[in-house]
Amino acid sequence: MATFNGLSQNPVYHKLNELAKEPFDLTMAGALNKKRISSYHAQTAGYSLLYGTQRLNHDVLTALQQLADDSQLVTQFLQMKKGEVINKIDGYESEHRQVLHTCVRDVFTGKPLHRDSAQQAKTELAKLQNFLEDLTRCTISTPDGGQFTDMILIGIGGSDLGPRALYMALNAYCLPDKRIHFISNVDPDDAAMVLRGINLKNTLVNVVSKSGTTLETLSNEELVRNAYTKSGLDPAKHFIAVTGKNSPMDNPDKYLQSFHMFDYIGGRYSATSMVGAVILSFALGYDAFIELLKGANSVDIAAEETDIRKNIPLLMALIGIWNNNFLGHQTLAILPYSQALVRFTAHLQQCDMESNGKSIDRQGRQLSYNSGPIIWGEPGTNGQHAFYQLIHQGTTTVPVEFIGFRKSQYGEDLTIKNTTSQEKLIANLLAQSIALATGREHQNPNRRFAGNRPNSVLIADQLTPFSMGALLAIYETKIAFQGFLWNINSFDQEGVQLGKVLANQLLDNLVESHTTDNTISKNDDTGKLMLKAAGII
Amino acid sequence: MATFNGLSQNPVYHKLNELAKEPFDLTMAGALNKKRISSYHAQTAGYSLLYGTQRLNHDVLTALQQLADDSQLVTQFLQMKKGEVINKIDGYESEHRQVLHTCVRDVFTGKPLHRDSAQQAKTELAKLQNFLEDLTRCTISTPDGGQFTDMILIGIGGSDLGPRALYMALNAYCLPDKRIHFISNVDPDDAAMVLRGINLKNTLVNVVSKSGTTLETLSNEELVRNAYTKSGLDPAKHFIAVTGKNSPMDNPDKYLQSFHMFDYIGGRYSATSMVGAVILSFALGYDAFIELLKGANSVDIAAEETDIRKNIPLLMALIGIWNNNFLGHQTLAILPYSQALVRFTAHLQQCDMESNGKSIDRQGRQLSYNSGPIIWGEPGTNGQHAFYQLIHQGTTTVPVEFIGFRKSQYGEDLTIKNTTSQEKLIANLLAQSIALATGREHQNPNRRFAGNRPNSVLIADQLTPFSMGALLAIYETKIAFQGFLWNINSFDQEGVQLGKVLANQLLDNLVESHTTDNTISKNDDTGKLMLKAAGII
Repeated sequence: MATFNGLSQNPVYHKLNELAKEPFDLTMAGALNKKRISSYHAQTAGYSLLYGTQRLNHDVLTALQQLADDSQLVTQFLQMKKGEVINKIDGYESEHRQVLHTCVRDVFTGKPLHRDSAQQAKTELAKLQNFLEDLTRCTISTPDGGQFTDMILIGIGGSDLGPRALYMALNAYCLPDKRIHFISNVDPDDAAMVLRGINLKNTLVNVVSKSGTTLETLSNEELVRNAYTKSGLDPAKHFIAVTGKNSPMDNPDKYLQSFHMFDYIGGRYSATSMVGAVILSFALGYDAFIELLKGANSVDIAAEETDIRKNIPLLMALIGIWNNNFLGHQTLAILPYSQALVRFTAHLQQCDMESNGKSIDRQGRQLSYNSGPIIWGEPGTNGQHAFYQLIHQGTTTVPVEFIGFRKSQYGEDLTIKNTTSQEKLIANLLAQSIALATGREHQNPNRRFAGNRPNSVLIADQLTPFSMGALLAIYETKIAFQGFLWNINSFDQEGVQLGKVLANQLLDNLVESHTTDNTISKNDDTGKLMLKAAGII
Repeated sequence: MATFNGLSQNPVYHKLNELAKEPFDLTMAGALNKKRISSYHAQTAGYSLLYGTQRLNHDVLTALQQLADDSQLVTQFLQMKKGEVINKIDGYESEHRQVLHTCVRDVFTGKPLHRDSAQQAKTELAKLQNFLEDLTRCTISTPDGGQFTDMILIGIGGSDLGPRALYMALNAYCLPDKRIHFISNVDPDDAAMVLRGINLKNTLVNVVSKSGTTLETLSNEELVRNAYTKSGLDPAKHFIAVTGKNSPMDNPDKYLQSFHMFDYIGGRYSATSMVGAVILSFALGYDAFIELLKGANSVDIAAEETDIRKNIPLLMALIGIWNNNFLGHQTLAILPYSQALVRFTAHLQQCDMESNGKSIDRQGRQLSYNSGPIIWGEPGTNGQHAFYQLIHQGTTTVPVEFIGFRKSQYGEDLTIKNTTSQEKLIANLLAQSIALATGREHQNPNRRFAGNRPNSVLIADQLTPFSMGALLAIYETKIAFQGFLWNINSFDQEGVQLGKVLANQLLDNLVESHTTDNTISKNDDTGKLMLKAAGII
């Protein structure tokens, strides 16, 4: 791949800085008029993005289009999907890998963009389909010969957040007799709490770790294996694995069945690989999972559109850059008006912050501009009764991405005071968007709203497996586009290494303390001093 | 109460700005030495705060002490606890109320600081105790004459987040046959999901709304009442209420039992009032709830200490001001290394951001400095596999408050590779604290950690009802101290009003659209335009 310049070297950078000195004023009378609302409206894969409530105008959009074109964002996206090695830092040791999370959903045509990885995806899907049939037919069964009803997912980070967020999002479509449980934290109380409420006999345990060496996952696996053994059950008849080929966990003696993941898919992008596939197809059925893949794939294709006004992930990426690098806002609240998306923001927090929380560019040079923002949020309307006070009247401006759906999932609703709960939900979402944008004057300064708080509304018809897949891919693709613009490697995570190294040193100190006294000597290292100060040794 | 100056009028403000030009460098060799780690260590109510990993030295602490003294923080705290009307804006219409959430735990001596409110608290506690006895004796029973096993809490914001966070934190101590469920969001899927898995016959429904008019809560109450009626059950024999005296919900005909809350306790400070009391004592037993109150009360008393080095909430408040107003960091991550605290950060997000997300001072003047930061976070070690990348290597510095415990709650643990999971958990917490502070040089720029990322470690022996109450009060008190320093009213929430007004207008538009066609006319308002653009009408 060619070397790309950073954001600040782009010819249009100074133009955008000029435009940012007087951003569009959303508080002007008539600012949110018919023309603005209807023209600041993009559509992709069943979603609409209403962005008239952002602080931008056509001049800004034209400059952002130029930024996208000059940075060849769509070209870079295509190169990624075609298997170019983009997970690297030029001139330095790095993971040096392809980035092919899109391949696991590029399985619906005879011409995938990257043939080998799509073939591997198909092989794993076929294995999964066979395994699910074995479960249905009770060829693989509980000790009593019945169907397994429960599955525990043991994983952490990318092996937990994505699958968990999607499972909760699609719980309404769950098969009636299936339940999923999650153990992730090395805190032993996490496993204890889950195990307390479960019938192990009817439960499959799905251990997920690409490396097969994740500390938390291996510890929790041992805790759960121990619980099985203590109950007189054979773990080998309950445990399955999702892991990298030839990893220490890729061991048929220990697992009923193993599914594979590959080093060209990062953990935080693995929700549509076997990492999410196994639990989601167990809980929702295989066909529902395929719908999810189709939704994601539809965005992967639509995001090749170069007109930013017709490509939601690209447009969201550029609006994010506008708010972050030109208007100076360091955080982004993602606020879904859907209780089912209760953990989706946490997944995006990982996906975005682990990808774009970087300080060097793809050539190893210090960045001269901000990269990824802090991502946070909780579902509305709940948040309205919590942190929205600060979003409306605090001293820090927080850009917001609202997400909503026209219909509920269960359809169980009542009309109270002439409107349904679903109508109240959507009315609140749109009201918040308008209130943040326009603000309100008032003679009582405490009832004054400054407005000009930038936000967008992303809306689709209903949260289904298909639209969930599309939503996931919209954000994955937005994050990739932003990484390309910042000229950073969005696909490694060297920032998690130092903590691991130090934790191992502290564990050595702890082991040592089991057998020796804990007098602090003059040469003791920080770790031992902290353990002592914290009252651990 | 006397008028207090804002932060920037304080004589020591400029001194602190000078000191902030060269904050303590945590990356120097030997910076985290024995002396620093042992002397930057405060203790309150069973908690230790290790803060050697903050970017401050004794000069800064001396200046912060002076700031606390000049602003009479402890005096203001005492005035609050004694019932002064501090929820107000001078010269403008406001709630004009006392702030007495401390009174509900000032019930253990004959001499409460504010007699009337403490007496009201005792009256409600006695009612609760009687009610629980009626449940145990089955004087109040299920239609079959048995004990109620489940309780649904219907509430939102302060009536949901605090009770939910505490229930999840203390789930390990739950009585074996009791379970709590929560419905908060106006999204009808929230109620549908909870109702799908529940036996209504054995369930009490606890509706919580101080005003008795909260849109979401009343809508969800109707949904649940409807489910009862459809199942042939009489809601009046299952529903109880926690509400303000004489609110529209204070109606004995509709509820088995009503408990009262008072206008001197804001929703976000109500977790230790009847709002939390009813579900927690149902789930954990009355005695455990009293332990929680004792823990909170111990902090309410300890926080009267004027030496900032001996008063954790006061010290945390001042360190927060140092990081926010002098070092310029606009967010704060609260990262508990305890899976049980999985929703505690969300509660604090509300408590802090709704309290201190303000732009005017107590005299109605625009602030000239930043007030409350953005609060966010997830439990460790999970977060280490997610957003920690940005905290370690991103372009934005995020101050961190770690929380941990020496022992697990369940005590179900295994030794793997010579250490228990609990030891691994704590070792990771302390390793992160050190890694963020000291950073690491490396010839590969991608493996370089800049360090100087300020953080503290708050640690206690075990998460119990007592220590949970103390932890809650530490944060409530920290937030109050910061509000005093910023000279803002931390106890109102005018910022949530505009959204409510606009939502009602949009609902009017929606009702109108049910009967008329939806042609947009030239004079249509923004709300109708947005509803149309979103495809709702």
